[in-house]
Order: sequence, then structure tokens, then C-alpha cells
Amino acid sequence: MTVTFPQGFRSAGIAVGLKSTGKPDLALVVNDGPHRAAAVVFTSNRAQANPILWSRKVAADGPARAVILNSGGANCFTGDFGYATARLTAEAVAGELDAAPEDVLVCSTGLIGTGDQAFRDKIVDGVPDLVQQLAEDDTTAPAAILTTDSVEKTATHAGNGWRIGAMAKGAGMLAPGLATMLVVITTDARIDGDAADRALRAAVGGTINRLDSDGCMSTNDQVTLLVSGASGVAADEAEFTAALTAVCDDLAAQLQADAEGASHDIDIEVCGAASEADAVEVGRSVARNNLFKAAIFGNDPNWGRVLAAIGTTEAAFDPYAADVSFNGVRLCHAGGPDRPVDECDLTPRRTHVLIELFAGEHTATIRTNDLTHDYVHENSAYSS
Amino acid sequence: MTVTFPQGFRSAGIAVGLKSTGKPDLALVVNDGPHRAAAVVFTSNRAQANPILWSRKVAADGPARAVILNSGGANCFTGDFGYATARLTAEAVAGELDAAPEDVLVCSTGLIGTGDQAFRDKIVDGVPDLVQQLAEDDTTAPAAILTTDSVEKTATHAGNGWRIGAMAKGAGMLAPGLATMLVVITTDARIDGDAADRALRAAVGGTINRLDSDGCMSTNDQVTLLVSGASGVAADEAEFTAALTAVCDDLAAQLQADAEGASHDIDIEVCGAASEADAVEVGRSVARNNLFKAAIFGNDPNWGRVLAAIGTTEAAFDPYAADVSFNGVRLCHAGGPDRPVDECDLTPRRTHVLIELFAGEHTATIRTNDLTHDYVHENSAYSS
Repeated sequence: MTVTFPQGFRSAGIAVGLKSTGKPDLALVVNDGPHRAAAVVFTSNRAQANPILWSRKVAADGPARAVILNSGGANCFTGDFGYATARLTAEAVAGELDAAPEDVLVCSTGLIGTGDQAFRDKIVDGVPDLVQQLAEDDTTAPAAILTTDSVEKTATHAGNGWRIGAMAKGAGMLAPGLATMLVVITTDARIDGDAADRALRAAVGGTINRLDSDGCMSTNDQVTLLVSGASGVAADEAEFTAALTAVCDDLAAQLQADAEGASHDIDIEVCGAASEADAVEVGRSVARNNLFKAAIFGNDPNWGRVLAAIGTTEAAFDPYAADVSFNGVRLCHAGGPDRPVDECDLTPRRTHVLIELFAGEHTATIRTNDLTHDYVHENSAYSS
Repeated sequence: MTVTFPQGFRSAGIAVGLKSTGKPDLALVVNDGPHRAAAVVFTSNRAQANPILWSRKVAADGPARAVILNSGGANCFTGDFGYATARLTAEAVAGELDAAPEDVLVCSTGLIGTGDQAFRDKIVDGVPDLVQQLAEDDTTAPAAILTTDSVEKTATHAGNGWRIGAMAKGAGMLAPGLATMLVVITTDARIDGDAADRALRAAVGGTINRLDSDGCMSTNDQVTLLVSGASGVAADEAEFTAALTAVCDDLAAQLQADAEGASHDIDIEVCGAASEADAVEVGRSVARNNLFKAAIFGNDPNWGRVLAAIGTTEAAFDPYAADVSFNGVRLCHAGGPDRPVDECDLTPRRTHVLIELFAGEHTATIRTNDLTHDYVHENSAYSS
């Protein structure tokens, strides 16, 4: 049980033929209430897939009854036809659940440009069977949203009389460029929509939004929180936010660890920044630097490339006052060489880079991966 | 003849042992006047190498008598010792030329962190011989500034009674991460320092600054223009700026074409932008997108990745109104599929991507390269 770990939820996952492998490719999560609050965070990419365009309307409308998710096709850059597909998908689910289409969120992941009549028919025709399979003890939904993921990603949290459940797929640097990240989180805590929205934004901001595997922003990313309130227990907002943050952090680590093509999971910790925004900017500048990422692939703790990357930011600090450590060994002190590079071992997959700016008290950690031959191969070869 | 194509200049290049290969690694360009105006553009990276820190003082001071350039070591992140090396290098040149050290620019390129006592001694001890070799018909300087470049980069222009000469090295995506770009341009036109500075900034802004091979900004980049005025002919500023722009564009194309590890030279032309800044931002977002760059390596004209990249910008346009063409074939019209992808042939090295935004009249072209196995290899393996 994942998204059905809290009370008031059913889920299911089935195969409708969107994936050529015949693996499960259509999932549904239904909120049976009594509450129907929802909070959703979307990609900030202005090129947005049709399911995102549809789901934005649903989210703006307030409550949500269900979220349907397909893998095997992103329904992005598919024009008016693709938007109608998203709407028809919601209508099919709503018809089966006796709900309003405007209360059904839709998520898609897979190859950009996929979304023809056959794609539509398989989804819409599959909905009755999908609804038939809904269960409170379901274990099939997480697999049905995967694309090139090698493992299912799930997380649960037992709070003070209430629970949180979650499933996720994707993350950047996934081959073959299907960088979409989809997350569905459920809770049976009693918490109102505004509080749920605040909690979700806070939780995602410090965790999933700091996962920057390859700097490429998807057209389909969506993180959905559904609130049933079925536990009957009102959650303290701060406590709930902390729990939700822990769940999102857990998912972010799983997404990072499953980034295909990667050989290192790199946590870039920035401390001593003048502001949190500065810490994030500094961390991202390193996470997006191809020279740094290629060096880590070669087990080279190249602190010069870290300084060259952070020197391109607007953040308030002196590059010649900064310290840089790799896996606990301080290789750079005050912008110059410190410990010998050969004291540092980068062969473990998990890599920790600590950047100390000495410009304030703020910190942030950005998760990323290295730049490898497999990344190039998987992102260049897939459509041929 | 390159930098000595205009009158009033001498140059030389020799080997002093900075390169383990024994190839030439120290070059000098001297302005014999009668004028000594100079204009210099530096890297905007805040992490700046010691020769940059020294040369900034020289440039702020106005005229320049000479520029000395070494390959085989970047003298970056080498602390106070490295700064003293840059100063001592300038003093050595000044002593031989009977000039002021504050009129001698210094450039270095090579591995970050290189700049010890042996490095200093080889340069300073080599200066007398270097000065001895100075000649008006020199052909040795361009080779002495190369690192992993496969060919010398030079350009000349014959104006209306005056001339421009230039040599360059480097560009991003050079293995092994020696992404430094050094350019020395000479002219015998009579043009004052302020006009030279305006002309250089205009010329570089539209050409070299739009070469964005791998998004990584060097700590050592420097473009130097030396003005001798020896032709005695006053240049019209607009005419001179146009000529200088053509020279810089020629160099930028040579730098792009010699980017090691690359298999495609990609010109990303953005038109119909609301402003030139928007056009540049849109072009850069594509040039820095690893998914796009890996796709081009695989000869895949992936227009969806172009739209996903430009959707991350703040530029004023509608992604669903944009057209995208690869090598003259419009594959995307109004944010959806247009011509079949197999009509487009990406096997030639030269690749043209046209992005039409339909939001205004402004244009810009960004030059970049693809993301290849060789790029990863060369930037991960070098220091081991």
C-alpha cells in the first residue's frame, strides 16, 4: 500500500497497450472522502503538456475527486486534439465515478509528441476496467506510472492519528529524455485546502525542487496532494508540513538514485550563504556545470571547476574566501589549494560536495547526478 | 602574418617548457606605436585568474605597450604567489622593452591550479629570448597560445588604408576543460581609446559572446585590441566597428569548428523576438540544454526539446505560436508537428536551427556544439 496507506483512498494500475512492452501504463487514485481538498504544483515550464493545461483548470477549481495518470505517451505538443484527449480522459473517469470532470486531474508521461487517436482510445476505453480494479489495498498503481525507471518509488508516513502515502516516477537525466516527474501524495489528515496548499509548496520547494539532475525542465511535471480527511484527526499544520517535507525528501532521494545513465548521486551542500536564494543559486550553478559533472564521472574532485561555476552567479560572497570539500576532505581553502586531491575518494556512488561561502547563515542542498557516457547515449539514441 | 598584418606591431612565439610536449608556449605581441591605445574585454566570471586580475589594472590604466600570453598553465586559484607571477612577468617584459610594467597585459591558459615556482621561472627567464625573436613578419605567435586546439586561429582584414590582424585560441567544450578563450587583435588604424573600446565591445557582444559551446564560463577569458595608428589613416568608427565585428565573427566560427569532442557545429538562429535580449536568452536556453545537445549528437532533429528549452525562458512569446526548423525543414509549426522528421538530414557537421517566435522584429544567433561521448571522455579523464 502506498497512496492507499491513508484512509479514504483507492487506487489501481492496469495495462492498456500504451507501452509496447505490455507493462502497466494506466493508473488511477480516487479520493473517497469525506473531504476532497487537493493541492497541486505544476512545472514552471511555459511549454506545458495538454494534461498540465487541463489539470491547471481542475486545480484552480478547488477540490479533486481523482487523478488518472498514464505512461507511454506525454500528450505534449499534440495541439487541440491532445487537449481534447485530456478532457475526454477526465470525462471517462468522472462518468464511472459519478463525479464532475472538473474534479479529475490528468497526468501523462512518455515521449513528447505522442497522443494520437489510438493513444486516446486506449486510455478512454481502459477507464471502466481501471475503475473496476480500484482497491483500498492496491499495490499496482506505482508500477503503472513508470517509464524508464528501474524501481517503483513510494513513501509513507504515520503521523499523530493520520497518515501520508505517496508514489512517484521519473526525474531528470532519465533516459530516454522522459524527464517527467509525477508524484501523487495522499493523506487522511483533516486539513483544509489552503493549509494543504501551503504545506505542499513548502515541502516541494525544499526537496523536489532542489533535485536538478540535468538542468532540463519537463513539460509534464506535476505533484498532486489529495486530502481525504478520513482519519477524522485534525493535523497541526507545522507538524503536517514537516511530515510532508520528509516524504518529499525521501522521494527526491529515490528519484536521484534512479537517474539512468548516472554513476554518482551528488549532494551539493552550500552553507554560509547570505540568503537561502543565494545558497540555491550557488548550488544550482554547480549542479548544471557540465565540466564539473563530467569530472565527477571520472572520480576527479575538481574544486577549480566548482569555483569557476559559482563565480558565474550573482550571489553575495567572495570566491577567494570560499572553501570546498569533497566527501569530507577540504581540498580548497580561501579559493586556493588545501588538502592533496588524492586524499579524496570519489569511487562511491554517493558524493558530497560542501561549499562554504562565509557570507551569512543560510544553507541549501541541491541534488544532482554526474554527466556520463550513458547519459549521452540514452538521450541521443532513443528516437532512432 | 596575423597580428603583425597591420603596421606598428611585432610578435613572437617560443617554447620555454611549460608544455610537456615541448611545443611553443609563450607569445608576445608588441605595439610599436606611434599610438598605444588598447581596449580589453574580460571574462565576467567572478572567479578570475591572476593574469586577469593583473590585466584589469593595466586596462584601467589606459594605454598598453604589449601583451604576453602563455599556454601550459592558467595561473588561476594560485593565490598571492600567482598574482606576483603575473606582475613579475609584466615587469620582465617591461624591462626588455624599456616600458612601464603597468602597460603590459598578461594572459594565461592551461590547467587551473598550475602556477608554481617552476612555472614562474620558465616564463620570466624566457622573456629575453622572446623579445629577441620579435619580428614584423612573425608567424610563430599563434601556435604558442594553443592548448588542445587542433589548428591555429587567425583572421585579417584590409580596410580603407588601415588593417586589422588577429589570433585566437580555445573556446568552450575544449578538452581537457581548458575552456579559456584568448584573442589578440591589432590595428594600425588611427582611432582613439574610447572609440576602440566601443568598437570592441560591440564586435565581441554580437559574435564571440554568442559562442556558447558548453555553457561553462572560463576564469581566464580575455580579448585584447591594440591600436598602433601606424597607418596614419583615421578610421571611420562605424566602418571600423563593422570590420572588427567581421573579424570577431570569423574567429568565433573557427573556435566553434575546433571545439574538441563536438561532432556538430550548431547555429541557433532566433528571429521574431520582441527584443534582442529575448532572442539571445531563447537561443542560449537551447544551446545549454543537454537533452537537445545529446539529440543532435544522435542526428535527431528533436524539436520538442527545443520547445521545452525555450519554455523555461522569461522571453515574451507564446511557445504555442513558435515554429522550429532544422537545416531548412520546418518540423514544428505553431507548437505542433509540421513536416515529417525524416525529411531532415542532420548528418552534416554544420547544423542550422531556426526558431521563429512571431513576437517582434529582433534576431540573434547563438553558436554551440553537440554533447558527445568525446566531450564526456575528454572532460572527465584529463587529470587522471
